[in-house]
Amino acid sequence: MDNVPLIAGFTIMSLSTLLIYISGRKKTPIKNHVMMHAMVTFIAATAYLAMALGVGNYLSTDGTIVYFARYIDWSVTTPILLAGLVMIAFHEYGPSSQMNGYLTAIIGLDVIMVVTGLLSSLADTPLVKTIWFVWSCVAFLGVLFLLWRPLRKIAATRALTTAGGYYKNITLLTLVWLIYPIVFLVGPEGLHIISDSASVWSFLVLDVIAKVFYAFYAARVLSKSFQTSTLDTTVV
Amino acid sequence: MDNVPLIAGFTIMSLSTLLIYISGRKKTPIKNHVMMHAMVTFIAATAYLAMALGVGNYLSTDGTIVYFARYIDWSVTTPILLAGLVMIAFHEYGPSSQMNGYLTAIIGLDVIMVVTGLLSSLADTPLVKTIWFVWSCVAFLGVLFLLWRPLRKIAATRALTTAGGYYKNITLLTLVWLIYPIVFLVGPEGLHIISDSASVWSFLVLDVIAKVFYAFYAARVLSKSFQTSTLDTTVV
Amino acid sequence: MDNVPLIAGFTIMSLSTLLIYISGRKKTPIKNHVMMHAMVTFIAATAYLAMALGVGNYLSTDGTIVYFARYIDWSVTTPILLAGLVMIAFHEYGPSSQMNGYLTAIIGLDVIMVVTGLLSSLADTPLVKTIWFVWSCVAFLGVLFLLWRPLRKIAATRALTTAGGYYKNITLLTLVWLIYPIVFLVGPEGLHIISDSASVWSFLVLDVIAKVFYAFYAARVLSKSFQTSTLDTTVV
Repeated sequence: MDNVPLIAGFTIMSLSTLLIYISGRKKTPIKNHVMMHAMVTFIAATAYLAMALGVGNYLSTDGTIVYFARYIDWSVTTPILLAGLVMIAFHEYGPSSQMNGYLTAIIGLDVIMVVTGLLSSLADTPLVKTIWFVWSCVAFLGVLFLLWRPLRKIAATRALTTAGGYYKNITLLTLVWLIYPIVFLVGPEGLHIISDSASVWSFLVLDVIAKVFYAFYAARVLSKSFQTSTLDTTVV
Repeated sequence: MDNVPLIAGFTIMSLSTLLIYISGRKKTPIKNHVMMHAMVTFIAATAYLAMALGVGNYLSTDGTIVYFARYIDWSVTTPILLAGLVMIAFHEYGPSSQMNGYLTAIIGLDVIMVVTGLLSSLADTPLVKTIWFVWSCVAFLGVLFLLWRPLRKIAATRALTTAGGYYKNITLLTLVWLIYPIVFLVGPEGLHIISDSASVWSFLVLDVIAKVFYAFYAARVLSKSFQTSTLDTTVV
Repeated sequence: MDNVPLIAGFTIMSLSTLLIYISGRKKTPIKNHVMMHAMVTFIAATAYLAMALGVGNYLSTDGTIVYFARYIDWSVTTPILLAGLVMIAFHEYGPSSQMNGYLTAIIGLDVIMVVTGLLSSLADTPLVKTIWFVWSCVAFLGVLFLLWRPLRKIAATRALTTAGGYYKNITLLTLVWLIYPIVFLVGPEGLHIISDSASVWSFLVLDVIAKVFYAFYAARVLSKSFQTSTLDTTVV
């Protein structure tokens, strides 16, 4: 029974990979984003397959299950999504030196957020659990700071439509990502207010919004932005 | 006795690293490929050293040995080789935004192919073993699809000689890489038709072709392509 | 009591992250380096937090402690520092194809240096310990060779001030990095001449020099180099 949401997750993510790729493969100016989003759902499909097969599901001492595949998924897919946003902020000007600095910083903060989240879920004592959760939130705030301050300023110097597209995408992504630590906090990894099953279903819904819906939403926003942009001739 | 092919692998890969670097270090237009290929054999040398010393050799429940170092090697060296091909397809135009999309997709598929291969070799039941093997093949087909369809189309828009060089390199790479899953399937990781020793020797031969021979072959092909290309002035 | 240097390390690295970011965030031409250096200290802060909390501290069979967090820190922060130097050698010309070759080679060698260092500290017999230590030194020599020969030649073709800045930075980095294998060799990981506590304190001092002092030193050197350089208009 616990397997239902995991197999559902595998099926949704597999089909979404095909759908995202097929629907976007002709959209030349945003094709790089299409391929990155299709990769995100393919990685998620693989992670859900592993969780459904019991691979990397670790029964912790207090009887809750820690899904390692979930953290591996997050530590790879969230950097890809953030890299897409950094590329939009620089309006596709290839990875200039400045862009590399932002990529290093935002991906570094993001991976630390995921890894310390895993350490929090594995911690034996409430104190250590809390310390890692707080540190994970610090890293998350760093990610949000970079997205909303320096990168938004850079996006604002590009064509108006690009700046608008960047703004729409980070708004959706921020809203969805803010729910993850809440589900984590009330779930078996934290205060244990909701059950393991409720937690798995919640993360499934969040994953579908953050990975599948976001892929189509971003493709729509970017298609509009780049079509009307006077700068899109620079895109190879 | 089992150690002979592993020590042979270490020796061949170490010497090849020096040879590839020394023979290619003056070829400015393809020096980036030379350095990437020398890195591939140096990583392989380190992996063979680990296998020879017994580091990461895990005796599974059915009595066969799983060599972790092999999978770590593959998960790093195959992305480097694929990144080289993507760079050729874009004819060295630095990582433009489009190129980043392809790099993310092909490296993502490739790493999933290797990791699910490892999960297949570790699986306890034939069903789980088969599921991971099939999923690994799905990812491999994704890699081949990207190499032979969209990336080949992009390569075809570059100078004729570059397109030809790209075509020759992916042909050799595809032929060699297709043998890996077959050796995996009939070896101790799969159907156990051939012995552990035969499997180790087979992988050694494949590794020498895919890493050492391919390095010299690609250097030769690319030297020709880029010399006669009218576009090679764009290479820094 | 053993925890004092680890908590000190966490505090110093956390505060340094803020200080590096705040003091450098307005220096547009070198902002990418500022962000990379701030990331380095943030990762180190996280690693020191893990060591202080006992996460990943593994008691080996001979009674010494192996700090996994340290190796994870090094395997990520040293590539970031080297990537910064490669970017300077190419004077910020974005990741051209040639630059990608050097990045792959130097980061590959560097990660192998760290991983084989970890394998050396985990090894059971003196022979295996020695083999991994020697191989780690081989990789380190490869890193130094790339920094001092081919990359220095490339840096020398840029503006005089840039070449000078590159030279100053690799000199400091080389001098500090050379002390690490010595502390490793005489510490509990190797010959066990100095105690675990002395080793932890030594690495703390080295980390502060290599990560915090180096960040401010490099920012100063690069600010001067790029201000007087005629080429800095190419920096986005």
